[in-house]
Amino acid sequence: MDKFIKAAFEQAKKSYAEGGIPIGSVLVHKGKIIGAGHNQRMQKGSPILHGEMDALENAGRQPALVYRECTLYTTLSPCPMCSGTIILYGIPKVVIGENRSFMGEERWLETRGVEVVMANSEECYQLMQQFIREKPEAWNEDIGV
Amino acid sequence: MDKFIKAAFEQAKKSYAEGGIPIGSVLVHKGKIIGAGHNQRMQKGSPILHGEMDALENAGRQPALVYRECTLYTTLSPCPMCSGTIILYGIPKVVIGENRSFMGEERWLETRGVEVVMANSEECYQLMQQFIREKPEAWNEDIGV
Repeated sequence: MDKFIKAAFEQAKKSYAEGGIPIGSVLVHKGKIIGAGHNQRMQKGSPILHGEMDALENAGRQPALVYRECTLYTTLSPCPMCSGTIILYGIPKVVIGENRSFMGEERWLETRGVEVVMANSEECYQLMQQFIREKPEAWNEDIGV
Repeated sequence: MDKFIKAAFEQAKKSYAEGGIPIGSVLVHKGKIIGAGHNQRMQKGSPILHGEMDALENAGRQPALVYRECTLYTTLSPCPMCSGTIILYGIPKVVIGENRSFMGEERWLETRGVEVVMANSEECYQLMQQFIREKPEAWNEDIGV
């Protein structure tokens, strides 16, 4: 497993251990993680802190030039909110753990010039599937259904 | 001025008074504000709390059925992040104070079935213009340029 997808997966496992939705992300700038985070719906009662958003929030305010040299690693295909955030900040590349549990806005990202890489991680998929079996209502709420 | 755009504008003025970016939003469900907020970049050092996001965060976790009966009022045309959030949660209608200071993803929202209403508020425009003159760097950072 790629070391940064592994770091995102560690965030997902941390969230799962807290009773939360197991999706994690890391924002990487020039080979260094500048923000790591995971879904905070259950932990903080937040509808906006998806894994990707939490990673960006934890990276804090960054100049546009930094975002444009970043790669975002995330365990699950990014939803419209997280994809819009990637586009807002001009993050040029996203590496995705899996998209079998949920297919986000990968095509929209590509039409906006974002490079989308699929890691096809079985670990990410299995953890997500386990959570969906255990807490389907929380998962549905997280994706607005 | 429509009373809910006025409520969003009050949020924008509150942010301006705090030294922040003057963009405010309210989420309205069946004629009642269930979440109000404003841009928190300067106040909380947050890259994700745009006015719309802050309003949704303050509304807390809501079932999908509630979002689908909501209207989001916002003083400025929603950026890709905030537009993606509207689409994620299936919010069917957005009322926008102005889009002369910044044109967001209005067309994308419309292609996804969201009703977009332009309020053409001169007050929203003037306050935004005043801020952009005073703190252009903060404004550019907020829109990723």
